Amino acid sequence: MTAVSNPISVTTGPITGSSKTYRELPDGARVPFRRVHLSTGDHLDLYDTSGPYTDDTAVIDLAAGLLARPGVLRNRGTQLQRARNGEITAEMAFIAEREGMPAEVVRDEVARGRAVIPANHNHPESEPMIIGKAFAVKVNANIGNSAVTSSVAEEVEKMVWATRWGADTIMDLSTGRDIHLTREWILRNSPVPVGTVPMYQALEKVDGDPTALTWEVYRDTVIEQCEQGVDYMTVHAGVLLRYIPLTVGRVTGIVSRGGSIMAAWMLARHAESFLYTHFAELCEILARYDVTFSLGDGLRPGSIADANDEAQFAELRTLGELTKIAKAHGVQVMIEGPGHVPMQKIVQNVRLEEDLCEEAPFYTLGPLTTDIAPAYDHITSAIGAAIVAQAGTAMLCYVTPKEHLGLPDRSDVKTGVITYKIAAHAADLAKAHPRAQERDDALSTARFEFRWHDQFALSLDPDTAREFHDETLPAAPAKSAHFCSMCGPKFCSMRISHDVRDAYEKGMAEKSREFSDGGNQVYLPLAATPKRI
Amino acid sequence: MTAVSNPISVTTGPITGSSKTYRELPDGARVPFRRVHLSTGDHLDLYDTSGPYTDDTAVIDLAAGLLARPGVLRNRGTQLQRARNGEITAEMAFIAEREGMPAEVVRDEVARGRAVIPANHNHPESEPMIIGKAFAVKVNANIGNSAVTSSVAEEVEKMVWATRWGADTIMDLSTGRDIHLTREWILRNSPVPVGTVPMYQALEKVDGDPTALTWEVYRDTVIEQCEQGVDYMTVHAGVLLRYIPLTVGRVTGIVSRGGSIMAAWMLARHAESFLYTHFAELCEILARYDVTFSLGDGLRPGSIADANDEAQFAELRTLGELTKIAKAHGVQVMIEGPGHVPMQKIVQNVRLEEDLCEEAPFYTLGPLTTDIAPAYDHITSAIGAAIVAQAGTAMLCYVTPKEHLGLPDRSDVKTGVITYKIAAHAADLAKAHPRAQERDDALSTARFEFRWHDQFALSLDPDTAREFHDETLPAAPAKSAHFCSMCGPKFCSMRISHDVRDAYEKGMAEKSREFSDGGNQVYLPLAATPKRI
Repeated sequence: MTAVSNPISVTTGPITGSSKTYRELPDGARVPFRRVHLSTGDHLDLYDTSGPYTDDTAVIDLAAGLLARPGVLRNRGTQLQRARNGEITAEMAFIAEREGMPAEVVRDEVARGRAVIPANHNHPESEPMIIGKAFAVKVNANIGNSAVTSSVAEEVEKMVWATRWGADTIMDLSTGRDIHLTREWILRNSPVPVGTVPMYQALEKVDGDPTALTWEVYRDTVIEQCEQGVDYMTVHAGVLLRYIPLTVGRVTGIVSRGGSIMAAWMLARHAESFLYTHFAELCEILARYDVTFSLGDGLRPGSIADANDEAQFAELRTLGELTKIAKAHGVQVMIEGPGHVPMQKIVQNVRLEEDLCEEAPFYTLGPLTTDIAPAYDHITSAIGAAIVAQAGTAMLCYVTPKEHLGLPDRSDVKTGVITYKIAAHAADLAKAHPRAQERDDALSTARFEFRWHDQFALSLDPDTAREFHDETLPAAPAKSAHFCSMCGPKFCSMRISHDVRDAYEKGMAEKSREFSDGGNQVYLPLAATPKRI
Repeated sequence: MTAVSNPISVTTGPITGSSKTYRELPDGARVPFRRVHLSTGDHLDLYDTSGPYTDDTAVIDLAAGLLARPGVLRNRGTQLQRARNGEITAEMAFIAEREGMPAEVVRDEVARGRAVIPANHNHPESEPMIIGKAFAVKVNANIGNSAVTSSVAEEVEKMVWATRWGADTIMDLSTGRDIHLTREWILRNSPVPVGTVPMYQALEKVDGDPTALTWEVYRDTVIEQCEQGVDYMTVHAGVLLRYIPLTVGRVTGIVSRGGSIMAAWMLARHAESFLYTHFAELCEILARYDVTFSLGDGLRPGSIADANDEAQFAELRTLGELTKIAKAHGVQVMIEGPGHVPMQKIVQNVRLEEDLCEEAPFYTLGPLTTDIAPAYDHITSAIGAAIVAQAGTAMLCYVTPKEHLGLPDRSDVKTGVITYKIAAHAADLAKAHPRAQERDDALSTARFEFRWHDQFALSLDPDTAREFHDETLPAAPAKSAHFCSMCGPKFCSMRISHDVRDAYEKGMAEKSREFSDGGNQVYLPLAATPKRI
């Protein structure tokens, strides 16, 4: 790879309390898991997005890039085409093991267009993963420099850092210097699929003047990125000339960069979007590499006032039309969604997307449930993200505390990823995803048994959990103490609860006759788990 | 007041971009608002919980306490009794102005027991507020020391700090040294109602041994706190002897401190809870001062596995029975709720509470929607809090990042309050509360017009929003720049959106005939706001 001036260093080594493990498939592929080691001698294996960086036996050479998966062949057709032909691909088998789902379900969901496997033939460094509502809800982390800030080295480390904490895909949204080079370093070293918005690089090629864009410049940029290995591309092909007037009365107009660039182009030329008029040609290009469309919502609402308006839903209808064209070309498709939406209007977005776009995976940004909390928009949007995911959204695009204010730094990236893992997991629980509750139960059991180290190891962020605990009780004995500083020893409900349980069990043996008139339910047999209602 | 050894200092002065304003009522009462001053010359008045501390004309003397509201008389009956008698009290008139609701609605909701006004006759320093689902969703902040940490001075500052950022009530949950003294300083200086769990102090009086508790010790503690001015009290009177076996098969047993203390007492004595057997006497005491019951959920689930189980709902049925007894005594009542609940089980909690407890205001802790994120439980619970509030919960008890790990410090208190203001406001929007969206619209309009200072001033935390912005663009001109560092100047969708709007308006005049065949919707009259669907 072309060398970069700044030295690049990334975070490596296992997450506290865990180690990397693999399950080997018949074809020799090794499916990674994060194994959490418990003080009881048990362990729990978790879905792991972090690649070789958390494997302390792996040798990392950033300049050479990650090792390619064996057996990735070009020109074998897309996962969609192969699924329709009844083939269970190597990627599908890998994903089935990763998700704990039958391979036939994976194939069927892909064949129906209800799930996508973003896996450009030219990105063999990536570990196969799936985005679809039958599977665990996924999280994307946006990284990338802007004209104002950041360097290649920082962006590579952000990619490694984001996947360490659970990002399932990365979008490189660079708009500044060295777009191609930054992307090259990210792609060659990314263990997860990488998405882009090719429009950003195309605009750089015409010196930032939207009206100077042409289909040819855009097309060549798409081909360049396909060749490089980008796994999915946001294309704002649903922003049509006739929709622009629908945005004029809005509080916040057009807030999507891609959408506003195309709107500027269309108004200047008084012509229909070249993304729309050349869409079939775009499909032919993406099909060759098995690059997945992420049909962008260029007219998404940027404020509570603009949510679910005619501009937004007019574009969604066009995205439905484009979905059918893409699928006819064998190209995998997902659909991007809002934005800023108050809670009571969120579910309608999912139902409409499913109706109009044949249940293509929905991929939403938030949505933010209020406009009034800049600096906390990871939280305003986590509320919306959990709700939209419960309703069927397949992947959530994270929002960081810097949203609306600046470019996220390393710390913001981690906060954004962890916050969105919470929303995704809350939705997995709500959807009764197989295995989702295992981790909750393991952590709560550790909590009840005062196994502090296990509690930390099982949490989304072991280091911060431990650090918070240690702020007031840093000494080693506190790690097995039957209380914490929150209530102090006298008031620990869990400690008292153990005493209650002991007393109850003792009472069972000694006192059962004496107190049987206290009501039938007083001395339920211990073995009988209370009924859930 | 008894002097304390540490010097106490609290945060005073207006919130950035705002000043205190008052609307005077016919009886001379002054209803406070936070006035946000905009660069356009307009202003927006917001609900204000912060008391005189944010009034830069007020003189604060912590040792003397806040000035008492005039006209607070003892022995005039409870707000519930007076509402039933058709009286619009001074408190109700104050609240009507504060909430922007007719006074008659306030009176009617209180009379029906669907709202409470926690206002002990002995706490005249507090500004009247209401908790009920017809009104803005409220937020409570828990403060208080434990045996391990904290001092009186810290707790008073936490109270001022929490109300500064929007806490509508405070609970003093001190369990350590100087419980009475800490509470005295908090009460005399608190502009919001103060709640407690009297059991904690009662337990200290018997040296922390639950089995040594007696009704008499508890009763005397309640009277002591009523005399002092506590506005509402958590009483775990619904934890009955026969419910204890229902908790034995749980993953996390009994996680409420009050609940576990009473369980320990009942099992040791093999007797029914004195809180339950003496409940009528307790009602007589609380009625004399107009102290509001907050009937505690001592058997709330402490893990996802235990949510909505028979133990939890058996207790809720008993709380329904107690609600009727309290109201028969003229005592105001609210009902506490869980805890840890997965998203799909949250709404059932609200419906059941309303059915069983005659729609008494529901007051929930979170609920946390997953167990796996210690250090981020303000977020896991904000998701649940927004959903439960949308369904009808009247007040949300905040959860801080330190939940399960330690006692919150000043920074955690602010994070918890802001996070819960987000959840409460998201629910107000979802419930279409009058005036809720005004603030979102004002902020989004400022954002679209690049009025950065206005955007900061209108946000829940102006200082942090500005600080985040300034990390990358600190210079003064950036405060009117038509971009930020997130996308840089070329890619600012909002700037382009203005260009699009200008171009469109220009095009309207010049080109309307020429392009009218582009579709009927292309040149909608500018005045016609796009229809919301």
